[in-house]
Amino acid sequence: MTHPRLTPLAATLPATVPFVGPEAQERARGQVFTARLGANESAFGPSPRAIAAMQQAATEVWMYGDPESHDLRTALAAHHGVSLANIMVGEGIDGLLGLLVRLYIGAGDGAVTSDGAYPTFNYHVAGFGGVLHKLPYKGDHEDPAALVAKAHETGAKLVYIANPDNPMGSWHAGPVIADMAANLPADCLLLLDEAYIDLAPEGTAPDIAVDTPNVIRLRTFSKGHGMAGARVGYAIGAAEMIAGFNKVRNHFGMCRISQAGALAALQDKAWIDHIRASTAASRAEIGRIAAAHGLSALPSATNFVTIDCGGDGAFARAVLTALVAEGIFVRMPFVAPQDRCIRVSCGTPDQIAAFAQSLPRALQQAKAG
Amino acid sequence: MTHPRLTPLAATLPATVPFVGPEAQERARGQVFTARLGANESAFGPSPRAIAAMQQAATEVWMYGDPESHDLRTALAAHHGVSLANIMVGEGIDGLLGLLVRLYIGAGDGAVTSDGAYPTFNYHVAGFGGVLHKLPYKGDHEDPAALVAKAHETGAKLVYIANPDNPMGSWHAGPVIADMAANLPADCLLLLDEAYIDLAPEGTAPDIAVDTPNVIRLRTFSKGHGMAGARVGYAIGAAEMIAGFNKVRNHFGMCRISQAGALAALQDKAWIDHIRASTAASRAEIGRIAAAHGLSALPSATNFVTIDCGGDGAFARAVLTALVAEGIFVRMPFVAPQDRCIRVSCGTPDQIAAFAQSLPRALQQAKAG
Repeated sequence: MTHPRLTPLAATLPATVPFVGPEAQERARGQVFTARLGANESAFGPSPRAIAAMQQAATEVWMYGDPESHDLRTALAAHHGVSLANIMVGEGIDGLLGLLVRLYIGAGDGAVTSDGAYPTFNYHVAGFGGVLHKLPYKGDHEDPAALVAKAHETGAKLVYIANPDNPMGSWHAGPVIADMAANLPADCLLLLDEAYIDLAPEGTAPDIAVDTPNVIRLRTFSKGHGMAGARVGYAIGAAEMIAGFNKVRNHFGMCRISQAGALAALQDKAWIDHIRASTAASRAEIGRIAAAHGLSALPSATNFVTIDCGGDGAFARAVLTALVAEGIFVRMPFVAPQDRCIRVSCGTPDQIAAFAQSLPRALQQAKAG
Repeated sequence: MTHPRLTPLAATLPATVPFVGPEAQERARGQVFTARLGANESAFGPSPRAIAAMQQAATEVWMYGDPESHDLRTALAAHHGVSLANIMVGEGIDGLLGLLVRLYIGAGDGAVTSDGAYPTFNYHVAGFGGVLHKLPYKGDHEDPAALVAKAHETGAKLVYIANPDNPMGSWHAGPVIADMAANLPADCLLLLDEAYIDLAPEGTAPDIAVDTPNVIRLRTFSKGHGMAGARVGYAIGAAEMIAGFNKVRNHFGMCRISQAGALAALQDKAWIDHIRASTAASRAEIGRIAAAHGLSALPSATNFVTIDCGGDGAFARAVLTALVAEGIFVRMPFVAPQDRCIRVSCGTPDQIAAFAQSLPRALQQAKAG
């Protein structure tokens, strides 16, 4: 029987998912997780003011959200000391990455990233027929100089870097990233994913002029602001580049409730301080738990801790499998040699205590092989 | 100065918006609208159970939504008597249309629609380099036979029809649409937009087997369910075709709060009956108001009424401009000769009363022209 014909590109794409959700794992296990520490969500939750704003907005959800996200963008522009025209709001950084790749990557165009960095970027590049150039991590850090060199070598149109990095938790000081931007080919766009910047040490965000034509910064309310389920990300960049989103985006794609929540969250500066403190405490506690079992926690500028399990990828996978079987949702989105690690999100003391309880049993099982 | 290079296609696209939102108009006017009757939103609101579910979900928004929307899809599958694999949830019909166009339309591929039908479909087709074949309405209805003939003539990959139609409010009986599907080339996909089907007479939805390989139906929680701001649409179709969405969609794009709200809304069958009754009453009232001023309201199977202003496009535009100046948000998304009309969404008695007050003044102004 004849079927409608996918485009030649779409026909070659696998129907894959960059990440399997914890709910799918729970359905497969027939049991919910005790501790949800695998997706770098903020178990400390969003600002109570954001929750109140969302609950109010739920009563007004018969109205479409403002397709321009004007109020939220105005507040973000003021927050960053830039103009309204320098800000675009979208359905999470994932959605914005997809749009940027669509705008810049055609069949055969090059994109540079680190091998083991955020897979959703790779998913989008493949989805638009681009060619990925992947470079190894260097000492568990992304390697800005190598990424820049590869961009020159390949004539790539996009370079992706996350600072701080997911999944390693490592980071570069702002000037390293600023140098990277300055040394890229002028016609190569730097996608600077700053999803975790709210949780990083002072000085991690580079000082790059907002009208720099080849840098776009991506931020989110999913991590520090604890609103992963609301899907609110935003891009900061030169007005001309930001206007490009209007060529292709789903103009009415932003949930009205999410817009209201993000606006309230941004205004609650005390809450983000509270989250920073809670996250730092949780990172330290995860580090202590790892150390107590002879494992080393990597330094982290994020809301998760990457733990070196001290063996090879097979050993770390065994630890992970045992933890998941115990009801602890953690992940290891790593490529060798970083796959010696597992990644544990910060969480409430109860969640971290559950992890602490399960870890020694998981290690024992993994050692027993 | 050198800039990053958009793809050749992206470079040709305008940074346009299919619809300007009422908020942008309010900002330009410096005043909010008295009655919001321009976007076919449901001023009757969502089910109180849906609001409660969204308010509860707001407290859990630190978690990503299930990327598979499993619970909502399961409920939708049961509701329609199909399998989970026949349902895909997305960020409104707009988002799903964009994905379908991406999957099927490459540079130069043809898509058939009616001239004056939903512009967001056209936006997506242009956005992926497709070629639009637009056919005139026939007696204020989309013309299924002509659309089918055009698909055969052009070898188009997609045909779009909305039943009931927006912006005319007209509809075809189910068997007419079923015939249309049966007569299309087997390799041409019918995008059947049923956004307004919840408000249409019994028998408007065609009886088409879900595993028909070249028909996909699009539904939404924006209209009958009154949740436009939540952005929840879904597609019903053959499992193989539905799986295609997983090649390209933003897997984590669905708001957690919206998923919870839609699930609760679907279960509140009494509310949708209430909305149907309220909408029918509002349609009748708008019809009476139009008649009282010598205008004719077109029959409608939707939550809006298209009113023939009795003159040409310039006259209808003058009526619209005067209404908007009075604080009544209405639209006229029409192409000649349908641009003799304005479109008024159903609303609460207060909103419709405000429209009734302003209409005679607007007509007077337009006549004074």
